[in-house]
Amino acid sequence: MHEIHVRTPSAIALVDITAEVQRVVRESGTQTGICHLFVPHTTAGLIVNENWDPSVREDIIHALNKLIPMRDNYRHREGNAAAHIKATLVGNSQALLIENGQVRLGTWQGIYLAEFDGPRHRTVWLHIV
Amino acid sequence: MHEIHVRTPSAIALVDITAEVQRVVRESGTQTGICHLFVPHTTAGLIVNENWDPSVREDIIHALNKLIPMRDNYRHREGNAAAHIKATLVGNSQALLIENGQVRLGTWQGIYLAEFDGPRHRTVWLHIV
Amino acid sequence: MHEIHVRTPSAIALVDITAEVQRVVRESGTQTGICHLFVPHTTAGLIVNENWDPSVREDIIHALNKLIPMRDNYRHREGNAAAHIKATLVGNSQALLIENGQVRLGTWQGIYLAEFDGPRHRTVWLHIV
Repeated sequence: MHEIHVRTPSAIALVDITAEVQRVVRESGTQTGICHLFVPHTTAGLIVNENWDPSVREDIIHALNKLIPMRDNYRHREGNAAAHIKATLVGNSQALLIENGQVRLGTWQGIYLAEFDGPRHRTVWLHIV
Repeated sequence: MHEIHVRTPSAIALVDITAEVQRVVRESGTQTGICHLFVPHTTAGLIVNENWDPSVREDIIHALNKLIPMRDNYRHREGNAAAHIKATLVGNSQALLIENGQVRLGTWQGIYLAEFDGPRHRTVWLHIV
Repeated sequence: MHEIHVRTPSAIALVDITAEVQRVVRESGTQTGICHLFVPHTTAGLIVNENWDPSVREDIIHALNKLIPMRDNYRHREGNAAAHIKATLVGNSQALLIENGQVRLGTWQGIYLAEFDGPRHRTVWLHIV
């Protein structure tokens, strides 16, 4: 079991963790297998999407904020109900394929921690099979 | 392959299956690995989220009902199109990390069967690697 | 690592890949395990849902189009921001359980490539553990 630690910059953000994930996989020496990622938080998730044009990430965040508004007569009293719901929609785990000692991604794919209730210190657990 | 059987209480509900999953993992004797969960239904899903304040679960259900209304000129004639769509959004599988003979979760995380067309008898398949 | 190649028919479509996935698993000779699917694209995803009534697939597509409209003042200039957002919501990977040399699915479940920016040639990566 490995861990990646992330300092998220704002209330809502997609933080690129691709290089960190690749580093852990490389250091594990695994040539072929699966890299499981798991976020042990209830107001953050994991996304694999566009790594090139940052406006895609802005559009994803904007769309999620529109679908799940910050204030909406939620019953949860801590003020972050919307963050829990967003995390539920995007999911908090990913299974990535390892080939030739690296996580294999599509040309335009990056791995992002999706922060919905930051800024915070977040942890991602990795388990390589 | 193991199975967990769940009797869901109502049309829409998040049913805590954390203790059942932990029991199956413990009885398997696996110390380190992955516990794969898979829901073989098309109107139910799996969520990992808040285990403490039940109002979060109510907010998640409320938000999903708002996004995907029960009635909306759906073409599917069985009356449960919204349940299929909700299941698609939350997903029907999860991969959980096993450490020291237990599924390792964040402090505030529980594992929930998401029922969208109950009440019913539901099954969750488990495969431990 | 195996690959499935799919020619998607239209801008938005759910293309049944169940038979192709079963063929790859059968030819691998694996009796028990996990079949990991991963879509290396940022405007397509994977769904496991209803295989019988095609109107369910139409309802899923209609609901996603309603939640994430094609045009909505997106910042991404390529015109396919909505496709990126839909792919994020449904997810781009799946872990399926293998038993008796086959992927085990529920009675009404099929495996679908979710195209959100077609028509295109798409690839699905499979890794069997």
